[in-house]
Amino acid sequence: MSATLTNKIEIIKATSSKINEVDFENLSFGAVFTDHLFECDYKNGEWQNPVIKPYKPFLLDPSAKVFHYGQAIFEGMKAYKDDQNAIWLFRPDENYKRFNNSAVRMAMPEVPEVIFMDGLNQLLDLDQAWVKPGAGNSMYIRPFMIATGDGVIANPSDDYKFMIILSPAKSYYSGEVKVLIAEHFSRAANGGIGAAKAAGNYAAQFYPTTLANKQGYQQVIWTDDATHTKLEEAGTMNVFFRINDTLLTAPVSERILDGITRKSLIEMAKKEGITVDVRPVLVSELVEAAQNGSLKEIFGAGTAAVVNPIIGFSYKEVYHELPKIENSFALQLKEKLTNIQHKLSEDTFGWTVKV
Amino acid sequence: MSATLTNKIEIIKATSSKINEVDFENLSFGAVFTDHLFECDYKNGEWQNPVIKPYKPFLLDPSAKVFHYGQAIFEGMKAYKDDQNAIWLFRPDENYKRFNNSAVRMAMPEVPEVIFMDGLNQLLDLDQAWVKPGAGNSMYIRPFMIATGDGVIANPSDDYKFMIILSPAKSYYSGEVKVLIAEHFSRAANGGIGAAKAAGNYAAQFYPTTLANKQGYQQVIWTDDATHTKLEEAGTMNVFFRINDTLLTAPVSERILDGITRKSLIEMAKKEGITVDVRPVLVSELVEAAQNGSLKEIFGAGTAAVVNPIIGFSYKEVYHELPKIENSFALQLKEKLTNIQHKLSEDTFGWTVKV
Ligand SMILES: Cc1ncc(COP(=O)(O)O)c(C=O)c1O
Ligand SMILES: Cc1ncc(COP(=O)(O)O)c(C=O)c1O
Repeated sequence: MSATLTNKIEIIKATSSKINEVDFENLSFGAVFTDHLFECDYKNGEWQNPVIKPYKPFLLDPSAKVFHYGQAIFEGMKAYKDDQNAIWLFRPDENYKRFNNSAVRMAMPEVPEVIFMDGLNQLLDLDQAWVKPGAGNSMYIRPFMIATGDGVIANPSDDYKFMIILSPAKSYYSGEVKVLIAEHFSRAANGGIGAAKAAGNYAAQFYPTTLANKQGYQQVIWTDDATHTKLEEAGTMNVFFRINDTLLTAPVSERILDGITRKSLIEMAKKEGITVDVRPVLVSELVEAAQNGSLKEIFGAGTAAVVNPIIGFSYKEVYHELPKIENSFALQLKEKLTNIQHKLSEDTFGWTVKV
Repeated sequence: MSATLTNKIEIIKATSSKINEVDFENLSFGAVFTDHLFECDYKNGEWQNPVIKPYKPFLLDPSAKVFHYGQAIFEGMKAYKDDQNAIWLFRPDENYKRFNNSAVRMAMPEVPEVIFMDGLNQLLDLDQAWVKPGAGNSMYIRPFMIATGDGVIANPSDDYKFMIILSPAKSYYSGEVKVLIAEHFSRAANGGIGAAKAAGNYAAQFYPTTLANKQGYQQVIWTDDATHTKLEEAGTMNVFFRINDTLLTAPVSERILDGITRKSLIEMAKKEGITVDVRPVLVSELVEAAQNGSLKEIFGAGTAAVVNPIIGFSYKEVYHELPKIENSFALQLKEKLTNIQHKLSEDTFGWTVKV
């Protein structure tokens, strides 16, 4: 990191903290934000004036491109406090790289590493009282970039705003999750933006997900849009299937987000001696495995929930419930991963980075 | 329309007009806005407090869902002033319907007709001095809706803002347009949101379009994402192909926007006795027709440019230039349509509606 740019972050402190108004035992995910945010604007071809300042609303023109053309990307990452009150990030370099990959795909400028990392580190340092130690507690970090240029003509913006906001989180328990396998709707096209964390990918899923919710399914597992035969990923999670003792998950592609939890779990599972098969997984295989009893587990993997066990799936109006299982891979892997993240066990992978 | 709601639009007038600062002879498309805008917020399950007020930036929370999940839709329509200084809209009911179709697909609330139409009419009435008469002049109208609810969790917003902004426009001449036929990138998935005017659809096209621009092509003609063999539409235009004396255009689908210019041209062409064949058009047909000389014209159709002739296309690194043509269907249809829009000829279709 260049020391020069580091020193340039202007810090405007909030006159008072909101921290005492927050009930840290009853946080809903992504709803409460810390006292400060990091902001850096892109204008005239350059990133300028990085600043940490009080979290508050900001002004945008009604013709700002983010409103009309959806030029917007984000990342989701977490920080954890250990029992010495040190704050740790989990694989932040991976989020940084993915953020800039998303930027390129959305015709947005890449954010320099020093701005992303120094902004993040200094912001976490300033709002460190908001990061609570203890299992289940974490700080959810949301770096994002939006097109702020004016004008209702469909071309890339000249101006952008990069921000980092922080939201304290409790471990995310979503109850028993049943999923619907997509038969008609899709989240990504071949040659599209499915592999980018582009804002528009998420709104596209809301309507079909709402329909699934009404039928009693909390999530949709998306299939390839051309044939609807291959299992891809869920709304904000990659998915794993355990058939007998093999873990299956789809390869990442231009339709599927390259999840950091996914790739960490694959590495960990292999180290545990679990066979992991990264290959296209067919809906028909899943149905067959459910029918013949070889389907043992399904789980989602993503930063918010880490690992999210799925208890059953519906396909073509038939609901397949999974048997209860001992020695769940999902729970084993989740425990190992969260222990590394919370610095409760040794990080032999070198994934954790001190703030 | 309900008179009750009409009367409820609060009007806050600008203290002074910016109109004298505007060079109406040299307008770039979508860059200048009138003195006022229409705004109506959706909160607690209801549309409330419609207001016309001075055009100016507004505040949003950094966690507003439009920034993170791209819940945003828009419409594009035009108003024209005739030589009696009356203002006319072109098929506004079609834009209204399409807007609400987009809203449903993006899990957003539908806007009541009275809010959309009264807001639009009263806004145009207040800023009528900005609508210039004369061929080529028009008022581009941008109704849009964004998710304003807070919180970085990927689910539909509870709060929305609907706005209408107005931008005076000159006839849109984009120079000689050469297009690239998409071989890898795509704009829409089967079961996706291609048929909605959703913000995220546009940002998705910026990067591949920028690549095409660098090769000397102004636009991309998108093909179906599964096979890249069917010609679909351009960035903000539907496309027509004339082979011999038949006009071909793709049927609308969940991947293709149901363009109002497109459907108007189809009706007009049929009335003129031109054979119009609405069916999937293959890239291979186009290449073959270019090679054997039966390909006479290609043109885009959309509100901004009305009709946009295309002089050649590139596919698999081969550029096919179209011959110069007399009796161009594109120019004939464009003239007839703009004459109807500007009230220079009789509107036998009943498409124009007085403000
Ligand atoms: C579409 C999608 N898939 C998968 C994931 C999981 O990725 P990660 O493990 O990096 O959080 C996410 C995001 O969190 C996502 O948005
Ligand atoms: C993707 C797309 N296709 C086609 C069109 C043309 O539609 P219309 O003729 O209604 O303007 C537009 C918008 O204007 C568009 O955004």
